[in-house]
Amino acid sequence: MLPGLSGETRIHLIVGDPVAQTKSPAGLTRVFAARGVDAVCVPMQVSAADLDPFMAAAKRVRNIDGIVVTVPHKFAALAHCERPSERARALAAVNAMRRERDGAWAGDMTDGVALVAALQAAGFAPQGRRALVVGAGGAGSAVVLALADAGARVAVHDTDAARREELRARLSARDIAIGSADPAGFDLVVNATPLGMAANDALPVATDRLEAGAYAADLVTRPVVTPFLDRARRRGSPIVTGEDIFAPQAGILADFLLFASG
Amino acid sequence: MLPGLSGETRIHLIVGDPVAQTKSPAGLTRVFAARGVDAVCVPMQVSAADLDPFMAAAKRVRNIDGIVVTVPHKFAALAHCERPSERARALAAVNAMRRERDGAWAGDMTDGVALVAALQAAGFAPQGRRALVVGAGGAGSAVVLALADAGARVAVHDTDAARREELRARLSARDIAIGSADPAGFDLVVNATPLGMAANDALPVATDRLEAGAYAADLVTRPVVTPFLDRARRRGSPIVTGEDIFAPQAGILADFLLFASG
Repeated sequence: MLPGLSGETRIHLIVGDPVAQTKSPAGLTRVFAARGVDAVCVPMQVSAADLDPFMAAAKRVRNIDGIVVTVPHKFAALAHCERPSERARALAAVNAMRRERDGAWAGDMTDGVALVAALQAAGFAPQGRRALVVGAGGAGSAVVLALADAGARVAVHDTDAARREELRARLSARDIAIGSADPAGFDLVVNATPLGMAANDALPVATDRLEAGAYAADLVTRPVVTPFLDRARRRGSPIVTGEDIFAPQAGILADFLLFASG
Repeated sequence: MLPGLSGETRIHLIVGDPVAQTKSPAGLTRVFAARGVDAVCVPMQVSAADLDPFMAAAKRVRNIDGIVVTVPHKFAALAHCERPSERARALAAVNAMRRERDGAWAGDMTDGVALVAALQAAGFAPQGRRALVVGAGGAGSAVVLALADAGARVAVHDTDAARREELRARLSARDIAIGSADPAGFDLVVNATPLGMAANDALPVATDRLEAGAYAADLVTRPVVTPFLDRARRRGSPIVTGEDIFAPQAGILADFLLFASG
């Protein structure tokens, strides 16, 4: 149960395609209520072709204060932020936008921060560890940057080599290696692709090659335990689920969304 | 308290400017829950200048099933309905839109129906009675049509004479008289203007000229008892508030919004 909606309730959107699996409508709305803020997070299923006119229209709605951005719009949404953060610019992606007091829209990319927080809560300290991140999309890029900035030695794998190289070029100030679907030699494997959402998806890595005791993390939130995490767990790996990652994420997003400045 | 929001919750909007006073976010969402439907009604404050691009974008959002339209957009929204009802076409206005199964948007205008239902619940039978409707906007036009179709002899007053004459021309199949701010001679006076929402608004009619026992109704929902209703009540008039009118309205809107066909 949530507090009541009224005409005075402030609105934050989560924009994605699909949206049925997203946790922000429930999670963020709960955080708003816990902080005494009369606001809700409303899902909006917007196709890629419709994103630009949708964002232009949504930014002008006067009771919309924030927009959470999810798959597949994290790259395209950057163009709709007049004031992106440094890490959003480095990643060329945003996962959260808010209207500043002067009317400009700020953007940030907090996915990687949430994953690092969830890993640390699960007992994994990134400093000096070898991490393989699968998926060089918006979330994967954020994870790579956050892990590198937390001191991990990071390799990235994406079946789209051009996308992987774009990420490495963008983050050229960090030393990001090239990975593959082989997790041998890594202390941590992060799935940052959508693989695992659909029943017949391929696995993101060859799980039979996971190192003993390597951590496995997955950004997919539904199912909570993806086939990748299930296989890793059977091999004795500590796992970090999308829900584990979302737990700090809602608070991190609310910190950003509710702190209008400028 | 309301049922939880999730990524799977279906979305209905109420589009207006302002929206803080609207009852649909609470009222419609409660009706959805009472009917076992996982849906919410979300307020969207959209200026007149922004309406067309907003509606074009909102109609393409795949988890938005319906749009309630309020002041000042009821006329302009008609152009966004591919399939308006007969009364919506007659009134050149809509207060509710829904996506049909084939993707086209149907539109209807139920404001007048709700007022007639509320009047009947308060003991006023329109047949043969003399009614003065103040305000020839979207809601006022709907009230005029519904009262005329319920057998009342209706006069309309609007300080914008051109708008009043447009209404009479549109409803030329009914015999709609010209009224004024003088309520003498009427059994019912309906305020269908926004007058009364702001503290220093003028009164819609000269309340000292109200007939003894004449009914007074007001479409304004905040304050619940407008200065017009307050003065009428002090003179002994039975009153029908915007909340009284909204009580059947939410159910009437839900009937329309949840019945996708086509």
